[in-house]
Amino acid sequence: MKKAVVFRQFFEKETSTYTYIIGCGKTRNSIIIDPVLETVERDAKYINELDLNLLYGINTHIHADHITGTGALKKKFPSMKSVLSSFSKAKADFYINFEKKLQIGEIKLSFKSTPGHTESCMTIISEDLESAFTGDALLIRSCGRTDFQGGSPEKLYHSIHENIFTLPNHYKLYPAHDYNGVINTTVEEEKKYNPRLTQNKENFIEIMNNLNLPYPKKIDKAILINMKCGIDF
Amino acid sequence: MKKAVVFRQFFEKETSTYTYIIGCGKTRNSIIIDPVLETVERDAKYINELDLNLLYGINTHIHADHITGTGALKKKFPSMKSVLSSFSKAKADFYINFEKKLQIGEIKLSFKSTPGHTESCMTIISEDLESAFTGDALLIRSCGRTDFQGGSPEKLYHSIHENIFTLPNHYKLYPAHDYNGVINTTVEEEKKYNPRLTQNKENFIEIMNNLNLPYPKKIDKAILINMKCGIDF
Repeated sequence: MKKAVVFRQFFEKETSTYTYIIGCGKTRNSIIIDPVLETVERDAKYINELDLNLLYGINTHIHADHITGTGALKKKFPSMKSVLSSFSKAKADFYINFEKKLQIGEIKLSFKSTPGHTESCMTIISEDLESAFTGDALLIRSCGRTDFQGGSPEKLYHSIHENIFTLPNHYKLYPAHDYNGVINTTVEEEKKYNPRLTQNKENFIEIMNNLNLPYPKKIDKAILINMKCGIDF
Repeated sequence: MKKAVVFRQFFEKETSTYTYIIGCGKTRNSIIIDPVLETVERDAKYINELDLNLLYGINTHIHADHITGTGALKKKFPSMKSVLSSFSKAKADFYINFEKKLQIGEIKLSFKSTPGHTESCMTIISEDLESAFTGDALLIRSCGRTDFQGGSPEKLYHSIHENIFTLPNHYKLYPAHDYNGVINTTVEEEKKYNPRLTQNKENFIEIMNNLNLPYPKKIDKAILINMKCGIDF
């Protein structure tokens, strides 16, 4: 029998960030992925109304565009542990070991290291939801920029081709952001229609090295705070 | 065996409107619900990339806050029919008969008249998706205003209690708008936590009659155009 999973997606308008809650329908144990400081009150309300026990607040990477909500959530849910990749060189309560699955009640999450946007980016995979949470590695019909925080177009190309595009075609993909109001995508669609990732590696690197994007407004403050999983109340 | 259904949700930032695509996974026949003029290019791109044959563009009601995209979509998909409630007194290619289901390939949609926000509001129900698309009748932890276009708090109260809260508790509810970045809800949650709808009828009417909301900016132009299902190209 298919396991009961609680799943919810939320959006933060200013930074176009998606936050996710995944919980075990039986034990009510749960995680939150990529919360934003400004929307912690909303997220906490839904965690309480959904009668969930929040075990982990996971950031897919050290965000540069917003301050994570994990610090503020720890204040509201004192037993919640902040979580980062073991490659993050940052402060967290718990580090992802990419060899092991994370057990949340009856459901299991596995993790792939998907560097390229930053060195410590990771993708979270849920077989129960037939979904992956790609952070800023793969965005819908796009991908994360590779020009700061240890970014590398070559690494990102390999991360996506080896660890995301190898998932089953029907798996849903949920990114950390979308700027066009698109809620999710699938492995099949991105393999067919992602304008950057359908290129060969050389063209992909050329595209990524010539995006000429502005420096993120909040980057200096955000990274400093996010290196310790948010504001330490 | 469960039928294959294609389902996608989209967001339009300026008016916080949700648009939905529902298609039959086998025949690729599909509908779009509540498209917005400004995001027609995006929606058309996804309809094409998902390899869907667009049969109907359905507006859950005559929107007052934005111009519907159904007119522009007819230009791109000439066989698409614009659809409104038979109670709308407006121009459309096809009117919903609340006694009949609408067959989209192998999937079926049923409709409930849910007046109160406007006279001709309707809720679209998909058993295959175990979901309902509530337009502006039920919003997440809220409901549509009842102070213009034939609105009535009493009618809205009955519409929601008799036609939405009577759906199975686990059914997902997808509204036409959300202003807080919440993507969807469930029947059970709204029955338990909707601050307006958990009140008795008298209190609900009192709340709705005292919202003192500003007159929508685009209402005069939007209603005029939406009474004929969008701009007639």
